[in-house]
Amino acid sequence: MSVVEDFSKLCLADKPAGAIATKSLVFKPKTAKTATPVPIVVVALHTTTTSSGLIAQEAVAKDPRLARDDLMKSFFSCESARGFTLAYLPNATSEFTLLIDQELESTDDSAVLQLNDDLFITKAELFKFLSTYSKKVVDFSKEVAKDPPPKKTKDAKKTAQPSNAALDDAKLIGITVDKAKDFPGWYQQVLTKGEMLDYYDVSGCYILRPPSYAIWEQIQKYFDEKIKALGVQNAYFPMFVSSRVLEKEKDHVEGFAPEVAWVTRAGSSELDEPIAIRPTSETVMYPYYAKWVQSYRDLPLKLNQWNSVVRWEFKHPQPFLRTREFLWQEGHTAFLESAEAQEEVLQILDYYAGVYEELLAVPVIKGKKTEKEKFAGGDFTTTVEGYIPQTGRGIQGGTSHHLGQNFSKMFNLSVENPLGAEHPKIFAYQNSWGLSTRTIGVMVMIHSDNKGLVIPPRVSQFQAVVIPVGITKKTTDEQRSLIHESAKDIESRLKKSGIRAFGDYNDNYTPGWKFSQYELKGIPIRIEMGPKDLENKQVVVVRRNDSRKYTVKLDELETRIPEILDEMHNDLFSKAKELFDTHRVIVDEWKDFVPNLNKKNILLSPWCGVMDCEEDIKDSSAKQDDGEEFETDDKSPSMGAKSLCIPFEQPELKEGQKCVRCDRKAINYTMFGRSY
Amino acid sequence: MSVVEDFSKLCLADKPAGAIATKSLVFKPKTAKTATPVPIVVVALHTTTTSSGLIAQEAVAKDPRLARDDLMKSFFSCESARGFTLAYLPNATSEFTLLIDQELESTDDSAVLQLNDDLFITKAELFKFLSTYSKKVVDFSKEVAKDPPPKKTKDAKKTAQPSNAALDDAKLIGITVDKAKDFPGWYQQVLTKGEMLDYYDVSGCYILRPPSYAIWEQIQKYFDEKIKALGVQNAYFPMFVSSRVLEKEKDHVEGFAPEVAWVTRAGSSELDEPIAIRPTSETVMYPYYAKWVQSYRDLPLKLNQWNSVVRWEFKHPQPFLRTREFLWQEGHTAFLESAEAQEEVLQILDYYAGVYEELLAVPVIKGKKTEKEKFAGGDFTTTVEGYIPQTGRGIQGGTSHHLGQNFSKMFNLSVENPLGAEHPKIFAYQNSWGLSTRTIGVMVMIHSDNKGLVIPPRVSQFQAVVIPVGITKKTTDEQRSLIHESAKDIESRLKKSGIRAFGDYNDNYTPGWKFSQYELKGIPIRIEMGPKDLENKQVVVVRRNDSRKYTVKLDELETRIPEILDEMHNDLFSKAKELFDTHRVIVDEWKDFVPNLNKKNILLSPWCGVMDCEEDIKDSSAKQDDGEEFETDDKSPSMGAKSLCIPFEQPELKEGQKCVRCDRKAINYTMFGRSY
Repeated sequence: MSVVEDFSKLCLADKPAGAIATKSLVFKPKTAKTATPVPIVVVALHTTTTSSGLIAQEAVAKDPRLARDDLMKSFFSCESARGFTLAYLPNATSEFTLLIDQELESTDDSAVLQLNDDLFITKAELFKFLSTYSKKVVDFSKEVAKDPPPKKTKDAKKTAQPSNAALDDAKLIGITVDKAKDFPGWYQQVLTKGEMLDYYDVSGCYILRPPSYAIWEQIQKYFDEKIKALGVQNAYFPMFVSSRVLEKEKDHVEGFAPEVAWVTRAGSSELDEPIAIRPTSETVMYPYYAKWVQSYRDLPLKLNQWNSVVRWEFKHPQPFLRTREFLWQEGHTAFLESAEAQEEVLQILDYYAGVYEELLAVPVIKGKKTEKEKFAGGDFTTTVEGYIPQTGRGIQGGTSHHLGQNFSKMFNLSVENPLGAEHPKIFAYQNSWGLSTRTIGVMVMIHSDNKGLVIPPRVSQFQAVVIPVGITKKTTDEQRSLIHESAKDIESRLKKSGIRAFGDYNDNYTPGWKFSQYELKGIPIRIEMGPKDLENKQVVVVRRNDSRKYTVKLDELETRIPEILDEMHNDLFSKAKELFDTHRVIVDEWKDFVPNLNKKNILLSPWCGVMDCEEDIKDSSAKQDDGEEFETDDKSPSMGAKSLCIPFEQPELKEGQKCVRCDRKAINYTMFGRSY
Repeated sequence: MSVVEDFSKLCLADKPAGAIATKSLVFKPKTAKTATPVPIVVVALHTTTTSSGLIAQEAVAKDPRLARDDLMKSFFSCESARGFTLAYLPNATSEFTLLIDQELESTDDSAVLQLNDDLFITKAELFKFLSTYSKKVVDFSKEVAKDPPPKKTKDAKKTAQPSNAALDDAKLIGITVDKAKDFPGWYQQVLTKGEMLDYYDVSGCYILRPPSYAIWEQIQKYFDEKIKALGVQNAYFPMFVSSRVLEKEKDHVEGFAPEVAWVTRAGSSELDEPIAIRPTSETVMYPYYAKWVQSYRDLPLKLNQWNSVVRWEFKHPQPFLRTREFLWQEGHTAFLESAEAQEEVLQILDYYAGVYEELLAVPVIKGKKTEKEKFAGGDFTTTVEGYIPQTGRGIQGGTSHHLGQNFSKMFNLSVENPLGAEHPKIFAYQNSWGLSTRTIGVMVMIHSDNKGLVIPPRVSQFQAVVIPVGITKKTTDEQRSLIHESAKDIESRLKKSGIRAFGDYNDNYTPGWKFSQYELKGIPIRIEMGPKDLENKQVVVVRRNDSRKYTVKLDELETRIPEILDEMHNDLFSKAKELFDTHRVIVDEWKDFVPNLNKKNILLSPWCGVMDCEEDIKDSSAKQDDGEEFETDDKSPSMGAKSLCIPFEQPELKEGQKCVRCDRKAINYTMFGRSY
């Protein structure tokens, strides 16, 4: 029996909701090449920031970095750094240093700790297990002794030598992790503390709380109106699909098979045949398209559904970006002619770009996927690609596929030739296109900051909060009541003019406390009404994204507030676009390829279009020099660059231009990057 | 090995889409009490009407009725009439007569036939199996010879001696089954031929095609606006739930456990622990309610989701009414005080009644469920109950539950007492409420007719179709083009004024053909524009429900069309209400109970409120004398009456009034009926 199995016996069979998340990290100190490094194992609360400076100091080691797979294998017989848990400690081939977070040590003995997705253990049991190792308890909240503390500054990003990812002046209730230093930790905090999303007790599934679902509703409204104007109709097909139908199109099913969830039992009865939950609905729908389309007059057939699909991915799940169930729309259309179908593919892609740019203030690049990256079973895939500045990674935003006649031939979706029965029958030309709640994750990653969420005004559940201010002990009852009435009047006027406004008139909280709350939640603007404002018949308006203040005359409320919201949208978009534009660089030579990737850039490179070369680029661009910062950031330390798309807007290709990687001639500029 | 297992070896392992549905029926002729009846087995296409007159004639038997369970058991060793398939033929204890539908016999040998939900067989294989029996091939489309054919009449319902459920003048493309004679067959045809819904290759699941999904969108819009005005917010919780969480509330899970679908495998990996698909979300949501609600200031918490749930029922599925996956909304709210919670329960019930009455033109009765029929785990359930005239059965339309503190105690959804920490903590008072796509099925059953669907105008995807008429060979090109232009102008004016209109200007079809098409699809009004209309600056408007004609001046189009649509709604509602009102009768004495049920009535009876008595009423009211007509109608020949609700509007209870069934004192009037 393996040590892992031994360990899991100490663990709980259940996965209790409300367990306390912890992390177990292994660091490798810098040593002379001939010396054997003594690994450092750090066990801490997930929320504790474990700075490498402090680890170095406490373990008396130099420049500790997160250990890579090779060390994990040789030292702990653990396949990968990512797969490491405390269960592997007994495998250690020699001495190691064990540092325990003081905060963890001081939790109650009966507390349930979560070690990873599957391992839950009581604190008492864990410490019994750890008692056989010599360990040091560390107060990670203290400053590193050797270096002087960095000068206190409001803008944590500008701190030159980050010793700690914790935010200096963050309160417990607010965000306590710096976006620039611990991006995944920050992402989790803005989502959960901003009340957009909560973690769920089935791994890889998340709860969309009202603020995020409301964003999805705005996206639905926008996109639904546009496609209905194109003649697309909504429908609903079952979530279940028989294996026979699912497996009809071979290339297609190969792409999804490893991730399909299977229902095998109902009540206490085993089903005769397992039934799949749709990972997408091509094979669910097309047998019926074939049945319904009896004549060319039945074409085009254009249906869409708003639904959830299930892809049981075994990779590390991430809220919105990679989840086992997600909400999306999937459009499926069939045409008599190839040209009309292809026209629609691009029309839909424009709408997807519209969702990102016009609603979410997120810039995207439109283009075509390479053969390697296209939708399995289709002719070609178009895509909108975004960019996450903190990680320098690209992210696929939404895809619109032209399936050609591949599926229609499989499912016999065909009609008699309009020219007459003596002409060959025509197989329909098909498209499918989908946009998911991933949109929301991209939006959060791009705009939000260390004070919490920043939600662009067009999609925010609430656009404005009205708050009475300046009420002190000296304020008379009459004045207080005038301020409140005036604030309520403003709220009601805004609502009437179609602004999603609300007011917070609770006297138990200070305006400052309220400001922080609504900043955390990303309400686009706050409107302050105080004694001076009352006197001057005005309000003070503060934008969430940059604290910019406006004074607005009361009689201009209905015209100025929408303008301010629009300005805010435009500024969010411009700022994000500038970051994307400055990090999208043309790289013609291979020598510049990896260095530019490592500068968190997306690359536009001349490329030959050969699939083997694409594989080679990915392998050869795997990150060589990955310090702690990058590792904790994306959990894929050795990720190489993938092709993101062949942008429609192309730099001019020089005559005789070679591929960036191989000796073949380049056929276009292709966008490469590390990606989600 | 049983004969059933032997038979299934002849069948196909797959369940191919597009198989031809068949039916196998067993009839028992009337004989002297001492004689042994020779059963008649009829094998026919599902769409073939097998009249008992013709069966009697061909089998030379008297008055054949569908056989009941007792005959099935003694003769074929088959547990129930409903469970009968051809697999049981070899069990026959003696001779029987076998009649084969000529239409079935003439299908292609390679055709795949569907015998029931699970059995699929090629025609060749089936006839090889049947070849060991002597059989007679029957042309069921011919008239019965002995009786003179009934006088041809447009109104098939008035035919005194129905010899055949087929409609006299129905064309193949239209509805070929009479609503009054074969209600289930008619229901299937109006739904599929009207293109509302299609059958799907996973049993119990159906495809909602655009016309039905559009109705659901109208319901969503209406209800969503109302609940948002109450402060309810939309959210989305995962479809998966761990067994540990699902099983937390015992009474509740007992109600759902037999119908829960379990995912046990993902790709090729067995899951460590099976995961359920939500049958409803109480236990999915409430652990998080408990986490989110930290203070009485966090109450009320009011969330709703629009989603699908799965209940793997083993009873006979019926489109919209009983399906394994269905769309619904589920609202879940938590309050500090019982009174506010209970007020909301009734408010929501009013909205449900509004969906039925204001949108679907379906009258409902509001009331409270008995202890036996209430939601498992809750305090009490309120309901809106409808009535299906053809079957005389009640149907539950939507339920709004007050859960009391039962769930909040299970999940520790509690807050500190607002009066202070020295007072006991308060467990939240909770509600849950749900309305599903069943609404659409009820609407179809009530309004639609032998020409096809009748869709009430407020929910219909399209409200009006504009059709050019009166164009003959003599019509000049100029006049033809004037008529078309005028029709298109009308379409565009209607759309501008918010009417969901479209036009059909295709010259390849006659107006008459178009009229039938749109009657089949239930478009509320058709607007005819012909030469005379052009001349008189008018249109002719024809209502779908009763062919009532209106002449509308073109300059009154925008005001009159909405009025006509509203009148149509009101007339549909009044007609349905009258039927419900005249079939809802007060029955004080037990002797009148079953006879009134058998007259397709819903009964209001004084009742004691004791659960045992309710069971007794159900058992004692099981139908005694069930002829063919009823049997084919509802497949539950011996169904007894259940309590539908205790109506809020009560007849006055006489002093000392006894229970309708037992000797106890009545505590209220309760509504009883056979039901769906």
